[in-house]
Formats: sequence, structure tokens, C-alpha cells
Amino acid sequence: MPIEWTGSGPELLLRVDRNRPEPLGEQLESALRESIRAGRLAAGERLPSSRALARDLGVSRGLVTECYAQLRAEGYLVTRGGSATRVAAARPPVGAPSPPTALITPTAPIGSTPAGPVRVDFRPGVPDLSSFPRERWSRALRHACRDVPSDLLGYGDPYGDPVLRDVLAAYLRRVRGAAADAAHTVVCAGYAQGLQLVLRALAGEGVRVVAVEDPGDPDHRAAAATAGLDVVAVPVDEHGVDTGALAATGARAVLLTPAHQSPTGVVLAPGRRQALIAWAAARDATIVEDDYDAEFRYDREPVGALQGLAPDRVALLGSVSKSLAPALRLGWILCPPGLSADVARQKRLADRGSPVLDQFALADLLRSGHYDRHLRHMRTRYAARRAALVDALGRYAPEVEVHGLAAGFHAVAQLPPDTDERAVVEAARRRSVALYGISGYLLDPPERRTTPARLVLGFGNLTPDAISDGIATVADLLRGG
Amino acid sequence: MPIEWTGSGPELLLRVDRNRPEPLGEQLESALRESIRAGRLAAGERLPSSRALARDLGVSRGLVTECYAQLRAEGYLVTRGGSATRVAAARPPVGAPSPPTALITPTAPIGSTPAGPVRVDFRPGVPDLSSFPRERWSRALRHACRDVPSDLLGYGDPYGDPVLRDVLAAYLRRVRGAAADAAHTVVCAGYAQGLQLVLRALAGEGVRVVAVEDPGDPDHRAAAATAGLDVVAVPVDEHGVDTGALAATGARAVLLTPAHQSPTGVVLAPGRRQALIAWAAARDATIVEDDYDAEFRYDREPVGALQGLAPDRVALLGSVSKSLAPALRLGWILCPPGLSADVARQKRLADRGSPVLDQFALADLLRSGHYDRHLRHMRTRYAARRAALVDALGRYAPEVEVHGLAAGFHAVAQLPPDTDERAVVEAARRRSVALYGISGYLLDPPERRTTPARLVLGFGNLTPDAISDGIATVADLLRGG
Repeated sequence: MPIEWTGSGPELLLRVDRNRPEPLGEQLESALRESIRAGRLAAGERLPSSRALARDLGVSRGLVTECYAQLRAEGYLVTRGGSATRVAAARPPVGAPSPPTALITPTAPIGSTPAGPVRVDFRPGVPDLSSFPRERWSRALRHACRDVPSDLLGYGDPYGDPVLRDVLAAYLRRVRGAAADAAHTVVCAGYAQGLQLVLRALAGEGVRVVAVEDPGDPDHRAAAATAGLDVVAVPVDEHGVDTGALAATGARAVLLTPAHQSPTGVVLAPGRRQALIAWAAARDATIVEDDYDAEFRYDREPVGALQGLAPDRVALLGSVSKSLAPALRLGWILCPPGLSADVARQKRLADRGSPVLDQFALADLLRSGHYDRHLRHMRTRYAARRAALVDALGRYAPEVEVHGLAAGFHAVAQLPPDTDERAVVEAARRRSVALYGISGYLLDPPERRTTPARLVLGFGNLTPDAISDGIATVADLLRGG
Repeated sequence: MPIEWTGSGPELLLRVDRNRPEPLGEQLESALRESIRAGRLAAGERLPSSRALARDLGVSRGLVTECYAQLRAEGYLVTRGGSATRVAAARPPVGAPSPPTALITPTAPIGSTPAGPVRVDFRPGVPDLSSFPRERWSRALRHACRDVPSDLLGYGDPYGDPVLRDVLAAYLRRVRGAAADAAHTVVCAGYAQGLQLVLRALAGEGVRVVAVEDPGDPDHRAAAATAGLDVVAVPVDEHGVDTGALAATGARAVLLTPAHQSPTGVVLAPGRRQALIAWAAARDATIVEDDYDAEFRYDREPVGALQGLAPDRVALLGSVSKSLAPALRLGWILCPPGLSADVARQKRLADRGSPVLDQFALADLLRSGHYDRHLRHMRTRYAARRAALVDALGRYAPEVEVHGLAAGFHAVAQLPPDTDERAVVEAARRRSVALYGISGYLLDPPERRTTPARLVLGFGNLTPDAISDGIATVADLLRGG
């Protein structure tokens, strides 16, 4: 039987039910998110103390505290000083605009693979390829080949298979706190394609300039150009993207990595989340959320997607590239309802829809719970690799500051002052260790010269021993020696 | 031991070898194509009579005659009246320019599915979906999941898997007479994507207008617009695209379906092939060859790809959509060498490369000979359906002229004069038979009013009984009754 709590308004009802399979904390989080989204808990409204709510629901106080903390991280709730927890209000961006940001002009490509043998490769963005569940995926494909109705082997729905879209939407509501609706979900070939489709749909709506994080993905420039858009760079600080600087650009679209900024690893701060939503509403702007490695968070639950806060303003892009393998080329877009028909039209022009058998196989994995089990398994595995990196740096190069370890499988190592980033990368390469400097991710050329030396260390596809070996091999370089 | 024939030049050597697995005719065709392409047999050069060559090679005269006929159809050889067979010379386009062709402006979409139940659907472009080799494809995927090296599960080569590209190039050389080089082969997600990638690469080289066949694929307009290109329509007559009209457009690129024009079913005539190559050379233009259903030819061998005549000028697009199933979304582009790096760059931006497991599976099918066996099987099956269509029309509606039956699995039925195409389609629909009028494929609006009523009848996904039933049901409408 559900336990209920009735808040200040007559319509507010939070239910948790011990007979449902989801943990109580998860149920409470979902119920609160849904109430805030639906406006049943209004902006500024005060929530009961964690003690009072725990008592009313008959749950532990810790469970409520955890739940409030999670929703603060996601931007649904705010707490000022020691006062009560309230529903966050969308606020206009604050602070003076940052220095004007420059339109990006093409520069040299980055991240090109150096020549010669590499023993330990800290390339970011690559998951543990040896853990791809070959057997399970093979079985899912076999079932797909056996079960797919013949009439689905023709040219399919450009939105994607309806069964997969249903299953995906349910998964993203549950695991990512997303406001996912199968009707506005488009299956695509991974992040790169999802981005192309959304940018083209936005260009069709009159968007001309898209803001991107700096440092950020250096491919964004070319991707935007292909869609006919210009790019403007917005700095990222320790709280995530600088919302004041974003507002100063005049852009009507922005590409973000809120859960784990790529490459700095910063988690977008709650206040920034609120500011972004307010900016998007005020400017009639669209936020493109790259949710690339959010499933892997170590200290607590993953931070819910920004999309859940403002589904009308956010297009969420996700894929199986980090959870299963990049080579599958399978992803999804949760579109703002006004954009989904355009995105699906772009998908039809791009390739007439994603392969049907792969869509069946992914639906099978999600439905059977194997996808969740695989993620849990991988979280443990990445946690061990993360620990190995922290240990190795602590032991061999304690002078190095490590950031961005809250989620995903890359971290940022800040080297001692006056270290020459390029010299470190080149010297390491001569010892067969591939390192990647952050300067390759800097879009705004002036900043390229003033930033401290930082390395983006991917640890997803390296064993703990390889991580330790790699760091030991280059430790003197990292120490600025 | 090979049997050789030494022609007029010291370098010309045609070999056929009874110990090789390929039939002798196929060997002779390949040897002649290769000699012409390489310039060892020069333009205008006279070939030995079929009698003399047959004697020298110790093969039957019929074999040589067949071979000459095939290469005439493909545009490599010419015969004027009763005189000798010579190597074709690239000629400038002849004939007065056609009336000026109009730039296409968006019009209503076509081919939209009518509402209500359909018993017999003559929709063109759909292969026999029930014949998809589920078992064999499933096994190939299982092998792929088992055998793929882990390091290929990351972000792959945007050109595609090197093994598949090798196997594909060999296949296209053998079966399509293409001048295929794995180094300039890009794997893609089927025709629609291949077209996008090539059009974008061409736009990057300064092409602004692309010519398309009229009637033709109504999606071409939107596809070109997405790549930033304008479209100009060029009429198709009983010999294929009107090369004089093409020359008059000033376009520097053209999209063609030479093997079996879509939708009229015309096979591009040898003289037109020559004229096209000459046009492309004179204008520094590119021909995009959609080789969509060429594998299925009934009266003789498939006509070789235009690409084989001028690999520097032709981008050949092919896919498994007609040979296996559209839902696989797997295809290829043979790029002119100067364009392949750009096309691969566009592929990287579009989706970072096609799924690796599917590429492994297709390579497996090609290498093991299962792909060829499946095509042979399907050719027999489609031949029976084609015969059923011809029989049914002959029996129930002998007034209807049928065209375009040389290849593929659709035909064009020309209705008696003064028949109202739309009225026939609508009346048939009320009897649960879906027919598709050619007016939906007409790009040049004025022509829309003057063309005779024609239906594009797809028979690939219908059993012989369904075809017979469908034609019988609408026979009075087709007779103009």
C-alpha cells in the first residue's frame, strides 16, 4: 500500500510504495521531480524539513536528505545557508557579461594520433572495449533476426522503431530523470549524428549561431559549419559553463555537457542550471544536452539530465557509445516537442532511419534488465580504474591537482605552474605513453596561451596496472621535472 | 594454361584461362574492359571480328558476340551499321539543346500512403522482404560478435572497415564491371546517406547546381537543399537522360540511374553513356551513379556500371537495400579519387562511421559466396514475379503498354490515351489495390500536365498470385474503362 504525503496544495501527493520494485529513494525523487515539473510544487515553495517528511512517509531521514541533495544537484531544489529547502525558481542570468567571445575560425585539427608505438594510451572518450558484452549482444541480435516481422525489414519509420522508443523513454525517465516522451524520441546513429540532425533542424528554424563550451569538443566547429551555423565559444569555469558570458553572445542555441563537462569534468552547478533554463526561456533558445557518460558517477547517483527541468527547451542526446561500444553507432534524441518532426525529417534525409535489427537488440537489452546490470558492472570496473589513477598520481606525482573525477572515465590533471604542456606530451610520447593536453580542446585562441598546463586523462580503456605503469613512466614529467 | 590474343599494340594481351573459376565470357569481358580503361585499346581502335577472335582464343563465336554486345550496352564499344566493332570514343553531346529546364521549387510531397486497408500494394522500390536471409545474416552477425577484435569496437575508420572495403571492391569489379579501388571506397548507411555525403563533398568543391532525372526520385530536391545545392531537372526519354538538355543546364553534377532508370525503367543507351562521359570531362563535372537494382537483369548479364568507363568522373552509390533488405541501412560509395577524402570527412561528421558488426557480417556474406547465391536465387524469384505481371497485364489489360522490364523489380505501364492517372489510382485504392502514378515522380511542373498516364508498378514484394489478383482487380481501370 502506498504511503502518501499531502503538501501545501490540494493536488500535491507524494507516494512511495514498498511493494514496488524501485528503491524508496528513487520513488521519492521521481515523485518530487514530477511534481515540480508539473507545477504542483511551485517555484519558491518551501518543502518540509527532511525530518518531518521522513516521519510522514515512514522512511529514514537519510533517505530524504539524499533525495533533497540529489535534486539540488540537478537544479530542482535550492537551499540557502541553513534555511529551508525550496523549489528552485528560474532566475535571469546574473553577473556582468564576460569579455566578448570571438567567433571561431578554423585552426589546426587536434588530437591527431602521434606516430610510433604506444604502450599506455590515456586517450579520453574511449570506454573499456574489452568489456563489450559480445555474447549478450549476439544473442539479442539473433532474437532480432528471428523475431523481426518481415514488413519491418523495409524502409522504416525515421523516428525509429516504436518499441525501442517506448523502452528508451521509460529508461531515461527512470535513470536520467528525463521528461522523456516516446512520441518526441528519435533514434539515431550516435552523438555525432544526433548533433547534426538537431543543428539542421535549428538552422531550419532560423538559428544562425550556436554557442559551445570552451574548452570543448573541437569537432563542434566543423559539425556546426556543416549545418550552416557559426560557432561562438563560451568559457567554462569550476561551476560549468559561464552563463553570463553565454547571455552576452546573443546565440539562440548552446551545446552543453552538464553531467560531466567534456573535457574539464566539471558537473554543472545547480545555480547555473537554473540560469540556463531562464536564459533559454527569455531568448526562445534551445539547449542541446550531450549526456555522454552520465551513467558513470561514483560518489552518489548520477545527476539527472537538465532536460528534465525544461523538456520544451532542451534536446537531450545520448548513445550506447560509452555504455556498450562506440562501434554500434546507436543513439537517441529527446526532442523538444516543437522540434521533433523537423529532427525526424532530417533523419529521413540523412539515412532514412537507423538499422532495425540493432534497434530490436537494444530494446531487448533494456527490457530484460541486462543493460542496467551491465552498467552496474561497468561502474564498479571504472571505479577501480579511477582509484588506480588517483593512487598513482598521489604516489608518483603528488604535485599534480586532479579534477573532474565525479563521473565518467576521464579526469583533468593540472600540472605545476610554468610546465610546458606540449613538451610534457611530446616527452611522454617518446616513452610510449600517449597523453592529451587540454590545449587541443581550447577553442578561443587567446586563451590557448594563458591557461595552465592541463592533461585530459582517459582511464576507461586501461587496466589499473596499465594506469599505474603509465603514470609511473611519466611521473617526473608531470611533476614539472 | 591461359589462352592469349595479342592485338595491334605490343601491350595488348587478352587472356582467358579455362582453369580459373570464372566463366570464359566473364574473363574476356573483364580483360577487354580493363584494356580499354587502361588505354591499351585506344578510342576508335578496331577490334577483330567475333569470328577471328573466337578462333584465336579457341572459344565459341557466340561467346565473343555476347561479350561485344555486353560491352556495347555498357558504352565501351560501338558498331555502326554492319561495320566492324571499335572502341568507343568519348564524343561531345549532340543535338540541339532541349527547351530550358526550370529550377525546381518545392511542391506537394508524393507517394504518400493512402489511408485504409491495402490488399495488394504495387509500391515500387521494395524488395521481397520475406526472402531476407535471416538465418544466414544472424550467423554472420554471430561470427562478427565473436571475431571482432576489441580495438575495432571503438570509434572506427570513417572510410569503413578495411576488410569489407577490399571484399566490396573485388565484388564490384567482378559483378558490376566497376573500376573499384578499396582506397577510394567509403562504406555508408545506404543510398540516401551516400548521396548526402557526395553532394556535400561536391558543394565543398564549389558545385552549386546538381541536375537530376525527370521523372525521378522526388526526394532529390530536399536532399540537395540539405547540402546547400539547387536542383535542375533534365528530361528522360526512351534512351535515358537527355544529354543535350543536360549540357544546356550548366550544372556541374548530375544524379543518374543508368542501369534501370528510376522510375521509367529505361536502360541508359550506349551513345548516351559516351556523351555523358564526354560532358563530364569537358565541364569538369561529376556523375553520381545510383546503382540501386542493377543486379537483377533478366534477359542477359547486368549492364556494367557507368563508373567503370570513367572512374575519375563518376561516384557510384550502391547498397544492400534491394539485395538483402532496406532495414540493414548499409551501402557504399566508389568515389572519384579526388573526392574520397572529402566524402570520408563528411562521413565522419555525419555519424563517425558505419556500425562495425554489420560491416563484418556483409564481408562474411560476400567472401563466403552466400551473397552471390542469394542474388541468383532472388533473380529467379523476381523473374517469376515479372512474368506474372506481364501475363496478368496481357490477359486482363492488353491495351496497356509495359516498359522498363529489362532489370529490377518495377515496370512502367502506359495507360490508353486520355486516361486520367489520378482517377485510376483513386478508384484502385477504393478496391484496396495501391497503385502509384508517374506524376508523383515528375519534377518539372509543366510536364506534369502533358505526360501520358503511366503507373509505376513495383512487383518485388508481391507473390505471383498477388500480382495476378491485383491486376485482375483493377483491369477495367487500366484499360481506360
